[in-house]
Amino acid sequence: MRQSQLFTKTSREAPKDEQALNAKLLMRAGFVHKNSAGVYSFLPLGWRVLSKIADIVREEMAAIGGQEIFLPVLVDKRYYKATGRANVDITFEAKGKSHDTGEFIIGWSHEEVLTEIASRFVFSFKDLPFAAYQIQTKARAEPRAKSGLLRGREFVMKDLYSFHASKEDLLRYYEEVKKAYFKIFKRCGLETIYTLASGGVFTMSNTHEFQVVAPLGEDTIYVCQKCKYAENKEVSKIRGISKCPKCSGQIQEKRSIEVGNIFPLGEKYSKAFDLRFTDKKGEKKYVVMGSYGIGLSRTMGAVVEVHHDQEGIIWPKEIAPFGAHLILLGEESKVKEVSESLYGSLKKHGVEVLYDDREQKTVGEKFADADLIGIPWRIVISERTLQKDCAELKKRNDKKVKLVKIKNVQQTI
Amino acid sequence: MRQSQLFTKTSREAPKDEQALNAKLLMRAGFVHKNSAGVYSFLPLGWRVLSKIADIVREEMAAIGGQEIFLPVLVDKRYYKATGRANVDITFEAKGKSHDTGEFIIGWSHEEVLTEIASRFVFSFKDLPFAAYQIQTKARAEPRAKSGLLRGREFVMKDLYSFHASKEDLLRYYEEVKKAYFKIFKRCGLETIYTLASGGVFTMSNTHEFQVVAPLGEDTIYVCQKCKYAENKEVSKIRGISKCPKCSGQIQEKRSIEVGNIFPLGEKYSKAFDLRFTDKKGEKKYVVMGSYGIGLSRTMGAVVEVHHDQEGIIWPKEIAPFGAHLILLGEESKVKEVSESLYGSLKKHGVEVLYDDREQKTVGEKFADADLIGIPWRIVISERTLQKDCAELKKRNDKKVKLVKIKNVQQTI
Repeated sequence: MRQSQLFTKTSREAPKDEQALNAKLLMRAGFVHKNSAGVYSFLPLGWRVLSKIADIVREEMAAIGGQEIFLPVLVDKRYYKATGRANVDITFEAKGKSHDTGEFIIGWSHEEVLTEIASRFVFSFKDLPFAAYQIQTKARAEPRAKSGLLRGREFVMKDLYSFHASKEDLLRYYEEVKKAYFKIFKRCGLETIYTLASGGVFTMSNTHEFQVVAPLGEDTIYVCQKCKYAENKEVSKIRGISKCPKCSGQIQEKRSIEVGNIFPLGEKYSKAFDLRFTDKKGEKKYVVMGSYGIGLSRTMGAVVEVHHDQEGIIWPKEIAPFGAHLILLGEESKVKEVSESLYGSLKKHGVEVLYDDREQKTVGEKFADADLIGIPWRIVISERTLQKDCAELKKRNDKKVKLVKIKNVQQTI
Repeated sequence: MRQSQLFTKTSREAPKDEQALNAKLLMRAGFVHKNSAGVYSFLPLGWRVLSKIADIVREEMAAIGGQEIFLPVLVDKRYYKATGRANVDITFEAKGKSHDTGEFIIGWSHEEVLTEIASRFVFSFKDLPFAAYQIQTKARAEPRAKSGLLRGREFVMKDLYSFHASKEDLLRYYEEVKKAYFKIFKRCGLETIYTLASGGVFTMSNTHEFQVVAPLGEDTIYVCQKCKYAENKEVSKIRGISKCPKCSGQIQEKRSIEVGNIFPLGEKYSKAFDLRFTDKKGEKKYVVMGSYGIGLSRTMGAVVEVHHDQEGIIWPKEIAPFGAHLILLGEESKVKEVSESLYGSLKKHGVEVLYDDREQKTVGEKFADADLIGIPWRIVISERTLQKDCAELKKRNDKKVKLVKIKNVQQTI
């Protein structure tokens, strides 16, 4: 894409009403716009990152048999009433201003809705197991919404639900999801810690969270330095004990960001919606369920918290808005010609390029913008580089620059 | 995908609480589930269709320079207050149940939000024109929600907004969007009529709609049988006149479904948000805007209204949930073996296949399901077809079946 046509611009100054580093950098670089506390618009660069995270999630969900669906944003109150979740304090209520539309809650988790749907299709053990997921905007009336994309009142989430004939089968799938989650976060450039946590409003059982260590994190976790066993402070029994019970390694307290969670729900929702099946012996049993969330917009915020420097964001390769940032310096016709031709040829070979073809911008401004936006490769073409028939290449997370023959640029990146 | 793993099932009986044909067929075939009046879940088959419509829209929006973004679902009331649209009667209001979150309207059109964002980036004529769009769930508190996907309280929409330095440039782009819209609907299998209409709550000017002729349509339009000039009843001056003023062709009254609309907004929103730019002469001027909508879920409903028969849906090729429905008949190991191998080979060559590998289903049940679901090609493999080393191929919208050698199946479809 030509940067001259991108409708957003970078800004030198950090927004005054943001404390969180992720929000400051993402707003300055033009990835997002803040509409209200905890409510952000995703602008073209930001939407590209979010879409790439969504693509990774879709690939890994498909790999574990997840069937993609799309459930309502307007969830009839009767659903949450059936499980006693209608009065949860983060609820956003919605109703028609002028017409009687019934009362809705803006869906913040869809166990109830999908359990009812499943009761249309599940009759026998032969109809199990299955898993379905969606990627959707959700709303939670967070009392504090001060951490940028980390704690939004509106956010994009992937929620997966699984249905099983037995607890054993649920636990088997739970392990599959766990592996898929580690893969997803790794592909997004995040190292996650699998952490024991409470069930919150979802279940009575313990659950697990995927935590990313970061100073801005709102969670406190206790992590064993030897075996990486971890517990969230809210459930931890190893708090205050300096040795891990599993391996007697040293325990450390860390601040962290929860980017995913997995819940062994058991029969809570199938009982509420009478979701039963006939087992091999002909007996009626309740379906055993699990649910599994990933905050996509929160993951994007967490990546910025972890991958940045003084100059701006450093996007991991797989979720960067573009693979390369091609920068044209100067106004000589030869420089322009080579840049245009390289832009065309990179695109043709499937490289996603942001092409800084802007006129009336100084070298300093173009480099500062490139650092702020944080695309993995910077490719500079100027009169000086062309004297050697070269482009100057630099990785965003590297200080070294190197001259590479124009014809070899594509294979280098 | 293996049909034995698809978690939805077809149903012989039409849902009792649905009058609209699109809802009846889509629910019977397992594409959607009705959660409340006008609120539907998209199940795996339905989500595939909706995603394909979205892919087409994205391709055609990119072709006219549309930059994809994602604006909030929770729109702060101040936005709609600024243009006097906070009290529009189809408004859904939302607020936190327990915390003071401010007051929101569930976004039903995003002119205000994007105009404010544009004011961060537009200063000079050099920053214009540009266009940005999103694909998003929107909510409108429709008093009647009886037409299935045609009039939902919640629906998926593509909304594009364009920003220009002059009215002339807006009109130039308006024509580009018009062409893109015809292409989109054609690719979705719909013939649309470009119809003069009122501006509703968007603008004082006349606007244009893309109408699909169908008996269930809630609109009435007057169409010239000679030049296809059309006016919506609500603005028509040719009502009651039997000749078209443009070409003196015969006028006919038709029922129709509005699947898209385009609005020359002018300066209404740029004035409300003080969105101005400096023109070539150094003078401050208001940006001239347009907005352009397509109902994606409504388009899906309209396609079903137009493309069906007694047995079920007949999906147009580009938006069908799968390209081919491979049906295994009988339990002979040879039949199974060939089916499995053809399934693998079709998938390998990029054909999207729904593979009916279900056991304990009769021939009649499998064929009835295939007709109901409506995938363009049906490929049957049975002991009988294998006697000639063939599969039996049939197009969904054709009565003829033909035997094709197994090795030639892929090239035939």
